[in-house]
Amino acid sequence: MKRVGVRPENGHQTRLLRLLRDHGPRSRAELGEAVELSKSKVAIELDRLGELGFVDVVGLAASRGGRRSQMVALSSGLRFIGIDIGATSIDVAVTDGELRLLGHAARPTDVREGPTVVLDQALDLVAKVRADLGEQACDGVQGVGVGVPGPVSQREGALVAPPIMPGWSHFPIRDMLGAALGAPVMVDNDVNIMALGELHAGNARNVDDVLFVKIGTGIGCGIVLGGDIHRGVTGSAGDIGHVQVDDAGPLCTCGRTGCLEAFFGGAALARDGEAAARAGRSGWLADVLARDGAVRALDVGAAAAAGDAVSVQLVRDGGRRLGQVLAALVSFFNPGLVVIGGGLAGLGHPLLAEIRSVVYRRSLPLATGNLPIVLSELGDSAGVVGAARLVSESVYSTT
Amino acid sequence: MKRVGVRPENGHQTRLLRLLRDHGPRSRAELGEAVELSKSKVAIELDRLGELGFVDVVGLAASRGGRRSQMVALSSGLRFIGIDIGATSIDVAVTDGELRLLGHAARPTDVREGPTVVLDQALDLVAKVRADLGEQACDGVQGVGVGVPGPVSQREGALVAPPIMPGWSHFPIRDMLGAALGAPVMVDNDVNIMALGELHAGNARNVDDVLFVKIGTGIGCGIVLGGDIHRGVTGSAGDIGHVQVDDAGPLCTCGRTGCLEAFFGGAALARDGEAAARAGRSGWLADVLARDGAVRALDVGAAAAAGDAVSVQLVRDGGRRLGQVLAALVSFFNPGLVVIGGGLAGLGHPLLAEIRSVVYRRSLPLATGNLPIVLSELGDSAGVVGAARLVSESVYSTT
Repeated sequence: MKRVGVRPENGHQTRLLRLLRDHGPRSRAELGEAVELSKSKVAIELDRLGELGFVDVVGLAASRGGRRSQMVALSSGLRFIGIDIGATSIDVAVTDGELRLLGHAARPTDVREGPTVVLDQALDLVAKVRADLGEQACDGVQGVGVGVPGPVSQREGALVAPPIMPGWSHFPIRDMLGAALGAPVMVDNDVNIMALGELHAGNARNVDDVLFVKIGTGIGCGIVLGGDIHRGVTGSAGDIGHVQVDDAGPLCTCGRTGCLEAFFGGAALARDGEAAARAGRSGWLADVLARDGAVRALDVGAAAAAGDAVSVQLVRDGGRRLGQVLAALVSFFNPGLVVIGGGLAGLGHPLLAEIRSVVYRRSLPLATGNLPIVLSELGDSAGVVGAARLVSESVYSTT
Repeated sequence: MKRVGVRPENGHQTRLLRLLRDHGPRSRAELGEAVELSKSKVAIELDRLGELGFVDVVGLAASRGGRRSQMVALSSGLRFIGIDIGATSIDVAVTDGELRLLGHAARPTDVREGPTVVLDQALDLVAKVRADLGEQACDGVQGVGVGVPGPVSQREGALVAPPIMPGWSHFPIRDMLGAALGAPVMVDNDVNIMALGELHAGNARNVDDVLFVKIGTGIGCGIVLGGDIHRGVTGSAGDIGHVQVDDAGPLCTCGRTGCLEAFFGGAALARDGEAAARAGRSGWLADVLARDGAVRALDVGAAAAAGDAVSVQLVRDGGRRLGQVLAALVSFFNPGLVVIGGGLAGLGHPLLAEIRSVVYRRSLPLATGNLPIVLSELGDSAGVVGAARLVSESVYSTT
């Protein structure tokens, strides 16, 4: 399918495409039952989707008694691109129509260098991934999903007043990438696309109401509601990094005191780790500082894993602060699952244990009775899968 | 319409009934446009709704050029009953099909006396309201909505483990009232039905994402999402009374320390007011105590309104604590409106000013830029209107 911009023609076709995306190849009979259409009507819709280049017949299903039904799958030529731009890294992937990764690559970046530099880096990475796959394998991209680390106006396809990202506010990301890649582009906040990734291929699959908490340089929350993202009236829902957890806490980059991010997250952990190194409270971190000239959050994680007492305490204190905020959100929202992801989810079980302890102790028993709190299993691919999912929702619908 | 249990037959009819409920009488032409049906198709559906007893023709619309279109309204004989059971009071109302109050009465109660006593009181009050209206005026009730002050299993139509309500857990409220009143009954949490009332007839009309905060004996939050209530996976969403606002706060009835309700709400305000009276810190409250033998939350409100410094400080401290929790929820949920209701909303603007001050200072600018925080205008009728709305959703739908 090379024609970009082709869309299904009605709601039945939309539902068929999303079923095939989320559950893989199905027989005509199964698809008819799933969308509650008669044999002849589902045949008409599937034939039309075949003509549009969306689906292929891939064989015959096992017999259920009568004549064997044809197996239908999304066309093997469908392609989506997912781009996940973080504060310090870019991930790019090419997927098939079911959003399975065909190719994936990453590189460091610095979003403070501005949109022209960073989006060029992203386009270079897209070209590299496509070249590795061979042109044949990814000709005709149907859509491009993009995640960026700040508040997004979906209508504009641009960031709006993101902190510490000079030049990005209202820069037309969607239009720039759309012109360069010749395909429809959708832009969303990086935390929302990671939550979509978890919903599509991670622990959140088949769970209706999910909180996805990203712990990276900062802290954000993606809210999954009935299988879709809740973005709020101005698109800022889930922005929990500046919830106040202590009246008298440290100064935050936002200018207020005691924000969650001022206590925990990559930036806070690096700051506290370096302070411990300089004060001689941690021999491990002092060695890191002497060797590298700085202490990063991941160094504190490695030190904690190796048993450095100060680092263990920093991770536990951070988990406790995040747990306080999560406990309130769990009582308020009553989700079916909490997933912890982002770079610092690599701190692993000591962090998870602390978060669980606070949430289970401080939330309503009714809300936590059957509430799993788990680490993301997708890791770095959550963002790119979610970005592909974001744009696939639009490509697989009539509008 | 006397036949109980009659339902519309398809989604078009459901949408027509809800349009007429929410917006009042409309011409056939307007209704056809609103539900996107041709003139002949909307006529078929409206005729059928007439046969089912749901709608009447009430005249001719103003001419829009051609033949004048018939005006259609919900049948004048439709009746709903709303019952709002609080910890210390029962409100009952009879409404018409558009959920306008035809009759309304209230009485004190004490839910600790158990479901048999309290539901009998509610049935007596229903009988009284119906008698006042005249039997003719409210024959044939289509549905009964009920709000109760605790966590509800909608599937059971019963409370589940409500605190301080002996005998209520799993008591079959729905079945008992259904048998007594001969109509379908739906039960929900009192805060949720108040939020539905605000959505139908209050400030929240036509706003998609709303937080309704009830400050009564305790504190709860109703979450309106896309015009419906978000209840969460176990039905406990919005239960914010036990969010911890201070590690070292007073002991709460739930056994933990520092819960929001331990700081603020009717029970906390009465406790703190009485303590101030006994300690001689407030002459006003000491007079109340000497006269009545106890200080109630409303006494503290009256004292604050009269300028009693201790009472003003109690109201402001309470508003600040509630504001802290709301600030976090506003950043998380990004609503389009916050409505403050319940008995203590009568504390009025000093309380509102304190809540606003904290929320506007502590939430994200993007989330509060256009966020109104207002007092409920419905007062005591929010619950009964919302209860009627709850059951009307079911009566006006096919299932």
